[in-house]
Amino acid sequence: MTQTERHKDLENYKILHPYILKVFRVLIADLVQQFNGGHPGGAMGMAAIGVALWKYVLNFSPNNPDYFNRDRFVLSNGHACLFQYAFHHLVGYKHMTMDQLKTYHSTHLESYCPGHPENEHPAIEVTTGALGQGVSNAVGLAIASKNLQATYNKPGYEVVSNHTFCMVGDACLQEGISLEAISLAGHLGLNNLTVIYDNNQVTCDGSVDLTNTENMNDKFKACNWKVIEIENGSEDVMAIVAALQKSKESSDKPTFINVHTSIGIGSNIEGQANAHGASFGEAEVDRLHQVYGFDPKNRIHIPEDVYQFFCDISSRGDILEVEWKSLVKRYGENYPELGADFARRVKGELPEDWASLIPKEFPTSDTASRASSGMIINPISSAINSLIVGTADLSPSVNLAYKDKLDFQNPRIKTTCGINGDYSGRYIHYGVREHAMAAIANGIAAFNRGTFIPCTSTFLMFYLYAAPAVRYGALSKLQVIHVATHDSIGIGEDGPTHQPIALPALYRAMPNLNYIRPCDSQEVAGAWEVAIRSKEMPTIISLSRHKLTQFPQNSKRDLVAKGAYSFHKEEDSMLNIIGVGSEMVFAVESAKLLNDRGIKTSVISFPSQYLFNKQPLEYKRSLLKRGKVPTVVIEAYTANGWERYATAGINMKTFGKSLPGPDTYRYFGFESSTIADKIEQYVAEWQTDDQIRLEFQDLN
Amino acid sequence: MTQTERHKDLENYKILHPYILKVFRVLIADLVQQFNGGHPGGAMGMAAIGVALWKYVLNFSPNNPDYFNRDRFVLSNGHACLFQYAFHHLVGYKHMTMDQLKTYHSTHLESYCPGHPENEHPAIEVTTGALGQGVSNAVGLAIASKNLQATYNKPGYEVVSNHTFCMVGDACLQEGISLEAISLAGHLGLNNLTVIYDNNQVTCDGSVDLTNTENMNDKFKACNWKVIEIENGSEDVMAIVAALQKSKESSDKPTFINVHTSIGIGSNIEGQANAHGASFGEAEVDRLHQVYGFDPKNRIHIPEDVYQFFCDISSRGDILEVEWKSLVKRYGENYPELGADFARRVKGELPEDWASLIPKEFPTSDTASRASSGMIINPISSAINSLIVGTADLSPSVNLAYKDKLDFQNPRIKTTCGINGDYSGRYIHYGVREHAMAAIANGIAAFNRGTFIPCTSTFLMFYLYAAPAVRYGALSKLQVIHVATHDSIGIGEDGPTHQPIALPALYRAMPNLNYIRPCDSQEVAGAWEVAIRSKEMPTIISLSRHKLTQFPQNSKRDLVAKGAYSFHKEEDSMLNIIGVGSEMVFAVESAKLLNDRGIKTSVISFPSQYLFNKQPLEYKRSLLKRGKVPTVVIEAYTANGWERYATAGINMKTFGKSLPGPDTYRYFGFESSTIADKIEQYVAEWQTDDQIRLEFQDLN
Repeated sequence: MTQTERHKDLENYKILHPYILKVFRVLIADLVQQFNGGHPGGAMGMAAIGVALWKYVLNFSPNNPDYFNRDRFVLSNGHACLFQYAFHHLVGYKHMTMDQLKTYHSTHLESYCPGHPENEHPAIEVTTGALGQGVSNAVGLAIASKNLQATYNKPGYEVVSNHTFCMVGDACLQEGISLEAISLAGHLGLNNLTVIYDNNQVTCDGSVDLTNTENMNDKFKACNWKVIEIENGSEDVMAIVAALQKSKESSDKPTFINVHTSIGIGSNIEGQANAHGASFGEAEVDRLHQVYGFDPKNRIHIPEDVYQFFCDISSRGDILEVEWKSLVKRYGENYPELGADFARRVKGELPEDWASLIPKEFPTSDTASRASSGMIINPISSAINSLIVGTADLSPSVNLAYKDKLDFQNPRIKTTCGINGDYSGRYIHYGVREHAMAAIANGIAAFNRGTFIPCTSTFLMFYLYAAPAVRYGALSKLQVIHVATHDSIGIGEDGPTHQPIALPALYRAMPNLNYIRPCDSQEVAGAWEVAIRSKEMPTIISLSRHKLTQFPQNSKRDLVAKGAYSFHKEEDSMLNIIGVGSEMVFAVESAKLLNDRGIKTSVISFPSQYLFNKQPLEYKRSLLKRGKVPTVVIEAYTANGWERYATAGINMKTFGKSLPGPDTYRYFGFESSTIADKIEQYVAEWQTDDQIRLEFQDLN
Repeated sequence: MTQTERHKDLENYKILHPYILKVFRVLIADLVQQFNGGHPGGAMGMAAIGVALWKYVLNFSPNNPDYFNRDRFVLSNGHACLFQYAFHHLVGYKHMTMDQLKTYHSTHLESYCPGHPENEHPAIEVTTGALGQGVSNAVGLAIASKNLQATYNKPGYEVVSNHTFCMVGDACLQEGISLEAISLAGHLGLNNLTVIYDNNQVTCDGSVDLTNTENMNDKFKACNWKVIEIENGSEDVMAIVAALQKSKESSDKPTFINVHTSIGIGSNIEGQANAHGASFGEAEVDRLHQVYGFDPKNRIHIPEDVYQFFCDISSRGDILEVEWKSLVKRYGENYPELGADFARRVKGELPEDWASLIPKEFPTSDTASRASSGMIINPISSAINSLIVGTADLSPSVNLAYKDKLDFQNPRIKTTCGINGDYSGRYIHYGVREHAMAAIANGIAAFNRGTFIPCTSTFLMFYLYAAPAVRYGALSKLQVIHVATHDSIGIGEDGPTHQPIALPALYRAMPNLNYIRPCDSQEVAGAWEVAIRSKEMPTIISLSRHKLTQFPQNSKRDLVAKGAYSFHKEEDSMLNIIGVGSEMVFAVESAKLLNDRGIKTSVISFPSQYLFNKQPLEYKRSLLKRGKVPTVVIEAYTANGWERYATAGINMKTFGKSLPGPDTYRYFGFESSTIADKIEQYVAEWQTDDQIRLEFQDLN
């Protein structure tokens, strides 16, 4: 169907819309009433937006939710998920049967209708719920598409041409993460992105003017967005369609469509905060049915003519996909090399030889692990276009800028510093926007699994700013690699504000996330290999700013994958010392001192608790020898969690201190001779005091 | 000195300014060169702003950095701390001697010049470093002042009249936390707040237009700020003074002063990114001395006439304080009741009887701990004006809205929902701005220790959004109470996006932070008592949405302060079960089942690891009986960290699931009979298998 035909279609169906909207709103009220819980108000208020999107604007294929060139839709106000579930049912997604739709808030274990959209289910692009994540994901999806377009499209062969639409509510636009992403999207001129604002001026506390009275349109304009306002957004489907179409045709800016709606429209609490997150009650649902001319006894019912209204969409989607496949085939014939590369990206594969790009050997002189990381990932990033790397304004610090890198940049911008780029670039200046960076990277990764491996970077401490988005990556099983430099107190002068102490405890506790702290260049190489092979999870590679002793005789690149391994083995050792990351040097040196004193000491390298936990019990026991020998972990973080592996620790109990790096270490007792003394005493106590054996000992 | 006199003064000294600025810039370059590290460029570029502030505008007293009615100055771009340190030296703060100034980036252990400003040192209002924290703190400081003004000031008796000034750089204005705080400050019409933008258009990566090309002035205007632009901000002290004075006189809005400056001004890398965070090198520092007409051999030197320029400030400060004390005295005579209350607030004390406001008894019927919390804190908040509570848009959920509460609100706003307020209100609608909320609360707490006890609130999961600010509270020893409701998987339908699994591991690992999970109303009361008594740290009180069984026979309000205590004691028990928070019911029930099966089982309640860690070793050992009996912890979070206290656990290993609360628990094995079975088997193994005894066992 051409656009003109579709618009004609729109004229014909004009009288149908009010009816469709009523059916939809009542359906939502019914579904929430069913188990007496959920979020009805927003979904009801957005009904007209939904009709505009799914019936008239979105390019997608219900028979194949994964159709590559589909428009991406993100529901950033994820609590309104019934909106999306109900439209997915109406437009004919096979998985979203009426029975499934009824599982919302039920005890059904295999529901496609959780309380917030989850990307493990068909046709859900990204998991949303915590507000603002979705907006940033949408920016990532738009970046991904823009980059593919610039990389692969040729005149007459627009193999990638999809648009990204993102729904937001009033609350999303208050979250900092959204404001970061909006600022960046405007700068980048992402004309393939439309944010649709469900402007109902109500949040949980009451009217939005309790806490926000800014001029939203002006704010978006100041951020380089096009702004379109829709006054009667609860009803006027055609105006919304026109705005959405216009936004698709924007030449140089993302579009913000400010759609005025009414929360809980039709109900007796329309426009009020309590329409947001609870059922209306049986009587009110009955009343709503009656007012709209429906039978109150006929709950959760969709009349056949409503299905008819949406019935063309499946075949439309089939045609879209057939046409796209045909286009891609012809593209491959005309551009065989690009075509093959594009096919690989669509399949989500890396070139097989990627690992051969990693150097085999590294300098044996002291090397900061952030520098090792650069040596490893730069050649890969340079050669393989699946990598899209970026930084929260720390290019000089994080070593991700590969040779001849081109920035992913708005080509219309000529920067003052003279570093320019275009949309084919794969180096992103995210700005000082750590949270949005991680969420945008999630969006890039979610575009199509494996098509991109996004890498973000900042100081480890600032991954606390990004933590909610890192968590969403873990929850959503997205491959994103976070390059966290300046770990440990070794960063020195920047002081306690910048020295991470407790943060690793979070990331080690987080399901489906691999926090790796390599101790030297070989282990950094191992960490990168693991990260690149981990297709269904994010990885944090934790790196030092300061130079680290290299252990070419001890460190084993391949064994990083086991999480922990024997680093230095003494026969019949009486003691294990666990070394981690930049504190390995203290483990090795204090072990040497202890061996010299006759205490046979082995050293274990322990870059990843996550990976170690996955090893067979036998391997774990043979390494740790729990009960046979004491095991002391040395790490300049709080001990929390190490109690599972070690019997004692040299760790941090307070925040850090601003001193030169070596002095900071010394100030907190990280000095090999001091450590050796403490451990020697501990070993003596361990051998004589049963209670000491049984309790984790903080030796610092 | 009157304002007119001061302006006259300004005329006289006009010719001096360029000289002062040069001395200052060279001083900064010298200080950074000294130990070859630090951040020179920003501090140099801001020199004129500093002269305007400290010489002409700020009301403060070098002889008493804690003078109550002082203007508050916040350096949100904390890496430029030399700016503040150097001016503190020049204006005569006693602690900031020349020797101290020289300790920047040194190995000196007792330095007042850490790499970022730290509030433990005199004249530093708040600790800054991670970008954007300071802006939000400044909003908090302005709110605190506004609230005191509205509460205490009387015509002719403006006992509180200070202003808050906050310096920000380009990077601060990219951070989401800043954008949240800016939005709220504009809404609230905080006319006692001035943000000074060091607009040098350079960050670490290069020129700001690499990542941000928005119209900053328009953005602030859209957010209801006054905007003043200063073109020649590196030099024009008088223009800056005029703008700062004007901002102090703003009637209804905060002011944004956009000051165009040049980073590293005077150096050969002026205006470039590498002027940001490294020394210039000996040769360049020499050159700078020469160009400015100073002797290159005379490093870190302040000519006497420069000291002369600033020499009036100490006595000016003394006079300010004397006048203020006199005013407060007369105020107390005229308004004895208010005066006494004000004196208490200035001293930072609570009325002695605050604890008597907590109910002694609670309903024994099942009660959600968020509801218990309301019963406890609402009477205190209502009666005692030191409490200033707020929420990130979750008023209906968090139970902090006390009877007859008045909103802290812009009195010029009449809201659509009809809930209005004024600046004397103590209930803050922070909006959906969790990160800014926590940082603003830090600012309120930092206004003057004990004058306010700010309480924030949102769902526990969203304290991950707020985590960096919560951490700054811990680092800065600020009393803020975070009310975190909807903890555990028990929240049910909202699903894995909202169910915290790993977050408590972070807060339990964080130094100087008390994360408390009370199990019933009495323990909630104990938690609040501890939190209110904890003057030098933040507390997170972790509460359930769902109703919890009450244990009036077992739970002990007073023993919450010990962190863990015997909840149910069996003589000669063979097993401990640790119950925590909303999972206590599983501990008690499974213990009962096990006791029925002949396995004598005691139950320990363990609301706070932080508090337990502070107990004497003897108490810890007598409770846990490590080595004598196995101890199983039951908690629906990841086990990380519990290995220190327990030998096995029924915990979570994955993210949660969207199901009704009881079903979510059941789905993940939290069912007393299942738990009892698992523990029974574990106890049998523990008695026979030495290795099992030695390793923490995940029973789930």
